[in-house]
Amino acid sequence: MSSTALSPLDALTIHLQETALLSTSNNLLDWDQETTMPSGGLEWRARQQALIARIVHERASSIERGDLIASVEADRAAMADAATMALVREARRDYEKATKLPSSLVEEMAKTSSMAKHEWAEARAASDFKRFAPWLERLVGLLRAQADCYGFSSGGERWDALADLYEPGCTAAYVAGVFDPLRPRLQKLIADLGSARVQPSNAFNDYFVSIEKQEKLSRMVAESIGFDFNRGRLDRSTHPFCGGTHCNDVRMTTRYSERCVNDALGSTMHESGHGIYEQGLPFSRIGTPLGEAISLGIHESQSRMWENQVGRSRSFWNWLTPRMGELIGGDVSRFSQEDLYSAANVVEPGFIRVEADEATYNLHVMVRFEIERAVIGGSLEVAGIPAEWNRLYKELLGLEVPDDRRGCLQDIHWSMGAMGYFPTYTLGNLYASQFFEAACEQLPGLVDGFTRGEFNGLREWLRANIHAHGRRFAPAELVQQVTGKPLSAEPLMRHLEGKLRPLYGI
Amino acid sequence: MSSTALSPLDALTIHLQETALLSTSNNLLDWDQETTMPSGGLEWRARQQALIARIVHERASSIERGDLIASVEADRAAMADAATMALVREARRDYEKATKLPSSLVEEMAKTSSMAKHEWAEARAASDFKRFAPWLERLVGLLRAQADCYGFSSGGERWDALADLYEPGCTAAYVAGVFDPLRPRLQKLIADLGSARVQPSNAFNDYFVSIEKQEKLSRMVAESIGFDFNRGRLDRSTHPFCGGTHCNDVRMTTRYSERCVNDALGSTMHESGHGIYEQGLPFSRIGTPLGEAISLGIHESQSRMWENQVGRSRSFWNWLTPRMGELIGGDVSRFSQEDLYSAANVVEPGFIRVEADEATYNLHVMVRFEIERAVIGGSLEVAGIPAEWNRLYKELLGLEVPDDRRGCLQDIHWSMGAMGYFPTYTLGNLYASQFFEAACEQLPGLVDGFTRGEFNGLREWLRANIHAHGRRFAPAELVQQVTGKPLSAEPLMRHLEGKLRPLYGI
Repeated sequence: MSSTALSPLDALTIHLQETALLSTSNNLLDWDQETTMPSGGLEWRARQQALIARIVHERASSIERGDLIASVEADRAAMADAATMALVREARRDYEKATKLPSSLVEEMAKTSSMAKHEWAEARAASDFKRFAPWLERLVGLLRAQADCYGFSSGGERWDALADLYEPGCTAAYVAGVFDPLRPRLQKLIADLGSARVQPSNAFNDYFVSIEKQEKLSRMVAESIGFDFNRGRLDRSTHPFCGGTHCNDVRMTTRYSERCVNDALGSTMHESGHGIYEQGLPFSRIGTPLGEAISLGIHESQSRMWENQVGRSRSFWNWLTPRMGELIGGDVSRFSQEDLYSAANVVEPGFIRVEADEATYNLHVMVRFEIERAVIGGSLEVAGIPAEWNRLYKELLGLEVPDDRRGCLQDIHWSMGAMGYFPTYTLGNLYASQFFEAACEQLPGLVDGFTRGEFNGLREWLRANIHAHGRRFAPAELVQQVTGKPLSAEPLMRHLEGKLRPLYGI
Repeated sequence: MSSTALSPLDALTIHLQETALLSTSNNLLDWDQETTMPSGGLEWRARQQALIARIVHERASSIERGDLIASVEADRAAMADAATMALVREARRDYEKATKLPSSLVEEMAKTSSMAKHEWAEARAASDFKRFAPWLERLVGLLRAQADCYGFSSGGERWDALADLYEPGCTAAYVAGVFDPLRPRLQKLIADLGSARVQPSNAFNDYFVSIEKQEKLSRMVAESIGFDFNRGRLDRSTHPFCGGTHCNDVRMTTRYSERCVNDALGSTMHESGHGIYEQGLPFSRIGTPLGEAISLGIHESQSRMWENQVGRSRSFWNWLTPRMGELIGGDVSRFSQEDLYSAANVVEPGFIRVEADEATYNLHVMVRFEIERAVIGGSLEVAGIPAEWNRLYKELLGLEVPDDRRGCLQDIHWSMGAMGYFPTYTLGNLYASQFFEAACEQLPGLVDGFTRGEFNGLREWLRANIHAHGRRFAPAELVQQVTGKPLSAEPLMRHLEGKLRPLYGI
């Protein structure tokens, strides 16, 4: 068929898919670099990725792409189909994002963040924020310019334009609306747990298990909860991630610490949640927005639900405990089921976000949200970040931050020019709790089934209600549609209180 | 620097390198598919590779590329440099190859060979040449048309144009010139070995060693002979190969059979030879013809030299035997050094080329060369191939071929539309022997050094004399330059007779 015989929708679909063939090739180069590539390959790999990224950007921002979108928008018959309308809406959104920034700003950001990442690593090693501050100032200037190019609604603020890149439709007001009621309740819960007379056993978090055995355990668990190894892999990397090229080739990684099985187990459950979402996207829509994940927050809801709602539940440990002896051997049977369940659920405030438990984690995110909102909004100078950081850690978590390394220099995100990203972690926790409550209502006996290793019901429910839609519904709309309610702090608090208060005997 | 400020040579180099960034990305997708990719990824991967191959071909055959080459050719100052002249000569050669075929013929060949590969696999399983014959007839027709597009010298024949794709400058007359004197001498040697009273022990080729231990052994050997694991990997695949993206990221694979250590060892030495060649190409010339291997035959000379001249030598086994106990354990010490050396050098005519020993292998190649030369030349019909194949196996190897599966259907090459390829295997053996004789002359004590694990001298000699040149010298020219003589059958015969006659006590 010659291209003139194609319908506008088919022509746009081909253009989108061909671009995706290239961008997903770059995803494989990424994965390979993180897991497999010998160190000598670094220089050439960087050049390969830069070139492919440039070709992808040229196509995604091309006049041809714009014309193809416009021609489907003008095709009334095609646009009468709701799925097509969503596809075109999202294609238009991507096109606007790709074309609104002048290329000088894109290049300046790429160059600055590349150097800033390096300077951040040095500053963190030296625990010296002053060294990083001039770079962060430049980045904040560029981020503000970016936000102005993208634009934001008249009642909104600059930060919204940045957050929208990661979570479509997300605004600071929306985030504050759910964070504000959450904060005092979390603080109260954490304080109560800290002063409880019963403290759950943490002993299993200091128990040696060889990495080979942990790998066997991780694979068994990932497969049991529904990750399909015919359409994906689990490998090792320094920082766990979920990558790959598309729904039928999902590459997730985890990491192993010989002294803490729960590290690998938690990270494997987490990445499996991401992986199961990716595997649930429809292959028939591949390469188009309807075959892509909707947002970072919704993605995180899937990883958190399998990690927390499932993997830290009593039913899950009912199922796993009797299997531990066979899988990891040794004298693991000296730990009771209660010991294992407890070790997975210990709550303890600390300085480091990535090491935080399920309850305190969200307070770490709130600190970052407050600070980046103020910095982008102009009410806080970059130089004032360490003091504000430390004040908020004292106020929210009751901790005296000892140095910048364990304080405002701990995360890489800002050095990459990513602001508006952090809240998606807590949004993920909130979505996860609300989705899971809906699943429990609609699937009677769901949690009891975990005891018998029955995880497929949840996976299929998520597939039908969330995964299969791709980017058809915006996150807030999806929450409303799946749960019948707008996003709220209640389900997360019910989840945490319902589990942690009994565990701590209060 | 704006592009107008670039010299013609710099502009051409950038165009070549950017194309190489894409084609080597495709090489990684290939490697990943063979070693790592979950089965579900197949369909999308095929589409990724087809698109990247199309973009690479468009660039390689573009008017822009042609103009860039012409502008360097017209730059007298640049062309005064011998290396530049060679670079441009090879860039011109590639450009002609890329532009001489009409795209209708390229597409017809791609479609036909894709289906023919499938039909060949079915025909081979059924041992039924008649089923494959109509496909091979179509392929031969297309290959003749290809040859006519490429052209060949007035004294030559169509086959030459096809061979030139794999071995620049190679002609049927050239191949016959070295094969003809080789054939009777090989036949005589093999007959003498077959009737010798001493038959070397084959017992070590039926000795169980776990794959984990064989993998450890293979890595140790590859590293010892000079493969750099900071710039490459060794993994497993169904068919061993050497791929990767460039000299600093070389991916080789091997395969393991629990009942035959020499399978993995031979294939690891072989692929390491390819890998060491790739790692020896100059990074400073990457992406240009001066950073690429010159031909399949020269590539094969490197793999065969490490596999045969080194890996089947007495000195090599002097070095390896005492290490076997530590590396593979068990009761391997019941095999003497002589047992191990013998097992690596048993000669026995068989039907299958890929299972053939060092001596009989070349007769397998000669059968294929005779047949494809006759088929392309028009003196043999496709329908007559099985009879001619079986006649030649009787004449050259003294064997009655029992069926087409073990006869003319055993190799995949013709079904892929590759004729003119097989002789590069024996050319590789010939080059290897002649290069190795030159190395022995120039590096006194070379072979004795293997006993002490000293392999670096050979690697460095190969790097300086062969690898570092990339495509600067055509194969025949390289042989003359490195060895001072044109290619001849003598060194290979000296190598085989000097080793095998004493082993068989004659």
